[in-house]
Amino acid sequence: MPPIGIASTPEPPYYAAIFTSQRTDGDRGYEHTAQKMFALAASQPGFLGAESVRSLDGLGITVSYWESEQAIANWKANAEHQLVQQTGKKIWYTDYVIRIAKVERVYGKDNSKFQASSVKLQ
Amino acid sequence: MPPIGIASTPEPPYYAAIFTSQRTDGDRGYEHTAQKMFALAASQPGFLGAESVRSLDGLGITVSYWESEQAIANWKANAEHQLVQQTGKKIWYTDYVIRIAKVERVYGKDNSKFQASSVKLQ
Repeated sequence: MPPIGIASTPEPPYYAAIFTSQRTDGDRGYEHTAQKMFALAASQPGFLGAESVRSLDGLGITVSYWESEQAIANWKANAEHQLVQQTGKKIWYTDYVIRIAKVERVYGKDNSKFQASSVKLQ
Repeated sequence: MPPIGIASTPEPPYYAAIFTSQRTDGDRGYEHTAQKMFALAASQPGFLGAESVRSLDGLGITVSYWESEQAIANWKANAEHQLVQQTGKKIWYTDYVIRIAKVERVYGKDNSKFQASSVKLQ
């Protein structure tokens, strides 16, 4: 099942994999596989949550959140995921970039939820 | 002008502001203001690029990239942006979360573009 809405994540620090992609035209098995991959990712050790949006013009951003860089590396190396990555490269995406980032601070609409993670900058 | 497609960013490290939001129904001045804010953000010191997607159900992810945490803090504190943030909180968003993260590694479809930024994990 794809992630729905805004992910509930613990206090930082944790890691984010920001996957920005441009889809080719047509489904070609994409939706079915994407749903399988969301479920598989969610079952991996260190998975914290994910958010995913795609617009009608085919640009998509999926951010998955993980306890550690190692958890992301393990997911990248997962055998079933590796096969899907190859299909993505060949068939589903005209282009994509994955950025691995350490989440350091979080704030939101209800700031009281996030006070513990805020820090002062100069 | 809103960002279009996948952002071209320099070699990491740099910072990302991941803004995930759920829109209320109706435009209520949102699109006009969003376009102004994209242009204003792009003119700020330390701005590196941005990616933005919203789906038909109103969930959106905008990731803006910055040279430093301080550049993000300066943009957050920008007077015109502050007013818009208040309107966003009151009118445009039922909920949102902003995560500030340090981008450490990047890879993409054409891995040769990103080799300099890859590191080995155990």
